[in-house]
Amino acid sequence: MELLEEHRCFEGRQQRWRHDSTTLNCAMTFSIFLPPTAENVKPPVLYWLSGLTCNDENFTTKAGAQRVAAELGIALVMPDTSPRGDDVADDAGYDLGKGAGFYLNATQQPWANHYRMYDYIRDELPALVKAQFEVSDRAAISGHSMGGHGALIMALKNPGTFTSVSAFAPIVNPTQVPWGQKAFSNYLGNDETTWQEWDSCALMQASHAEDAIPTLIDQGDADQFLANQLQPAVLAEVARQKSWPLTLRIQPGHDHSYYFIASFIEDHLRFHAEHLFG
Amino acid sequence: MELLEEHRCFEGRQQRWRHDSTTLNCAMTFSIFLPPTAENVKPPVLYWLSGLTCNDENFTTKAGAQRVAAELGIALVMPDTSPRGDDVADDAGYDLGKGAGFYLNATQQPWANHYRMYDYIRDELPALVKAQFEVSDRAAISGHSMGGHGALIMALKNPGTFTSVSAFAPIVNPTQVPWGQKAFSNYLGNDETTWQEWDSCALMQASHAEDAIPTLIDQGDADQFLANQLQPAVLAEVARQKSWPLTLRIQPGHDHSYYFIASFIEDHLRFHAEHLFG
Repeated sequence: MELLEEHRCFEGRQQRWRHDSTTLNCAMTFSIFLPPTAENVKPPVLYWLSGLTCNDENFTTKAGAQRVAAELGIALVMPDTSPRGDDVADDAGYDLGKGAGFYLNATQQPWANHYRMYDYIRDELPALVKAQFEVSDRAAISGHSMGGHGALIMALKNPGTFTSVSAFAPIVNPTQVPWGQKAFSNYLGNDETTWQEWDSCALMQASHAEDAIPTLIDQGDADQFLANQLQPAVLAEVARQKSWPLTLRIQPGHDHSYYFIASFIEDHLRFHAEHLFG
Repeated sequence: MELLEEHRCFEGRQQRWRHDSTTLNCAMTFSIFLPPTAENVKPPVLYWLSGLTCNDENFTTKAGAQRVAAELGIALVMPDTSPRGDDVADDAGYDLGKGAGFYLNATQQPWANHYRMYDYIRDELPALVKAQFEVSDRAAISGHSMGGHGALIMALKNPGTFTSVSAFAPIVNPTQVPWGQKAFSNYLGNDETTWQEWDSCALMQASHAEDAIPTLIDQGDADQFLANQLQPAVLAEVARQKSWPLTLRIQPGHDHSYYFIASFIEDHLRFHAEHLFG
């Protein structure tokens, strides 16, 4: 682990690290915010998964989350969105390859050698964080767009791991929308039965009642991707059928940008704090 | 005026505009945040001047100021830091030319044709803002580093224009430090007597008691530029001699980054609100 940057931020510490990922078979960077309380007690961790084209710095610099995380005593961990490096396969499109890992394990070439973001986020990164920092075992997860999809599938596929999950404008039904269909056909192949285990709607439909956790989704009604790529109401309908505790809030006038995230990240952190410290 | 972007942000509106500047003889962009109260009352304006290498988007995306500005009912105006465009003179250094206008009027070639940021910020931009947006005549000014210098000289040279001034890690004594000496010798020439009217320490020394306005400066003690470029204590000593109401706060562990600005921008906005609405 190599410390690339460290800054005081709201009396906590904002750091950026590089490490060699054995899961992804490349060097990776991630950012972490340690609240001031971390000097006395082990803080719980909120994992934040970013969207298409992002790396670990978008949320870190634009969301304004550290102010509230410092107050609440929550550590924030911000990973990158794909494997990186010259020998990692890529695509000319912004929605496939680097910056577009979709938080799954690819089975098809040329992707399968490196694109294992699911295993990285589920196993390697939390193990690294727990080994290197004084944090507690309590964790929650959140994300934006492709990262909202990532947060939801992480929570749905790993009962007992997270106390709560939230998302901003998530891709809830990737098997049915252009972004997901492009990514899944490339990463997973054309057998659509294999796609279902990476689709939040399918996963929630198959979930057990005792595994449900509090879930908060914010969606702007001026989001240019709402109708074609996002459709969070589809997941809300599954949640209704399954009595899953999901709150979907439609935010008037808000779009897909970090201005939307900045406007409501405080609500998400306070929502997670209720359950992380509950 | 061409609207380049608009986003809902904390129930206000974050916009980015392009216009042809007659002062700078080039096209310029600026960003503006209009608080939700702007629909009913004309809000006062806080002008924010950014530092070296920045444009109008650094503060806009990284400082988290909109949350507090929305609550207080203050409009934020974020200009660029220099003239722009292919026919504008530039330099290979990050601290001269584009992104480094130093908020002065250049007298030397090749700079004098475009580098008139002082006149732009003092006259053209406020006139444009007042003509295009429903804002009040009350204004305050703030900035970071080179922009802290800009905010201080704007306030010191224009009594009665601003109700208060603040700065993060400002260059208070540019005639005595490397950044200022490089910029001033290029923009103003080698006659150092002409430099004095762009130096906050010299301007405050020459100020009249009745023109003093409340002034807040924050400085991180882990700022890599503190000893060599900034030295805010020099201005604090002038303020003491002149009974100028300046508060200099040294913030332990903080550096020169936007994490420092984000940590204390709320204090600055509340400080300005006291005087804007007082």
